[in-house]
Amino acid sequence: MRFDHAGVATDNAEGLAFLYEDLFGCEIVHEERFGELSVIFLELENGYFELLEPHDDGTISRYLDEHGPGLHHIALETDDIDAALASAGAAGAELIDEEPRRGAWGHQVAFLHPGSTGGVLIEFVEH
Amino acid sequence: MRFDHAGVATDNAEGLAFLYEDLFGCEIVHEERFGELSVIFLELENGYFELLEPHDDGTISRYLDEHGPGLHHIALETDDIDAALASAGAAGAELIDEEPRRGAWGHQVAFLHPGSTGGVLIEFVEH
Repeated sequence: MRFDHAGVATDNAEGLAFLYEDLFGCEIVHEERFGELSVIFLELENGYFELLEPHDDGTISRYLDEHGPGLHHIALETDDIDAALASAGAAGAELIDEEPRRGAWGHQVAFLHPGSTGGVLIEFVEH
Repeated sequence: MRFDHAGVATDNAEGLAFLYEDLFGCEIVHEERFGELSVIFLELENGYFELLEPHDDGTISRYLDEHGPGLHHIALETDDIDAALASAGAAGAELIDEEPRRGAWGHQVAFLHPGSTGGVLIEFVEH
């Protein structure tokens, strides 16, 4: 399993993207409107930042209300998300998504509940 | 710049390491006592989880008191940490460490203040 991205909740995805370009020498490689979110991916040499800005009520707006901007989740890339989910469930993780669903950038994604992973919201992603 | 690791604050590093081995197929590659912390590194294909368990008062115990267990920081690897710090400072980041210092695993590390990076505690690391 590979690190894919760190998801960051923000109230200004474009502004944070420009800052991260300056700070880390990464570049914007994908932008889209996904549901109530503006999503920007910035590419590092071996993964991405995913910046998530809400425009309406949802999990990210609630996260910002409760925690303020910052690290929201870690995404791990797998070649077989169904097998990864089955294995994680067997190992005791609580699955937020019992089945993979379409996420940003057209990827298949599924989340594990942080209460079962040491407080870390984990996303599995298959490109 | 490359993703190096996701730092996770926990009150049971060994237990979480065994869980992550089961969940993500990663392996423990380094353990040490670093100051007041037990530190365990788990290797993914292209990076690490760093599990941080405090045994005394410090930044991680305060983080656990305030936030509970979970994602603490993201570390980015650079071949030249002095240049990365200078560049980040010039781009407007507030440096927690003006100079690199010795971190876990003998690496040179320096942190950027989350108030200047969108709420994300960023570590630069040079192996």
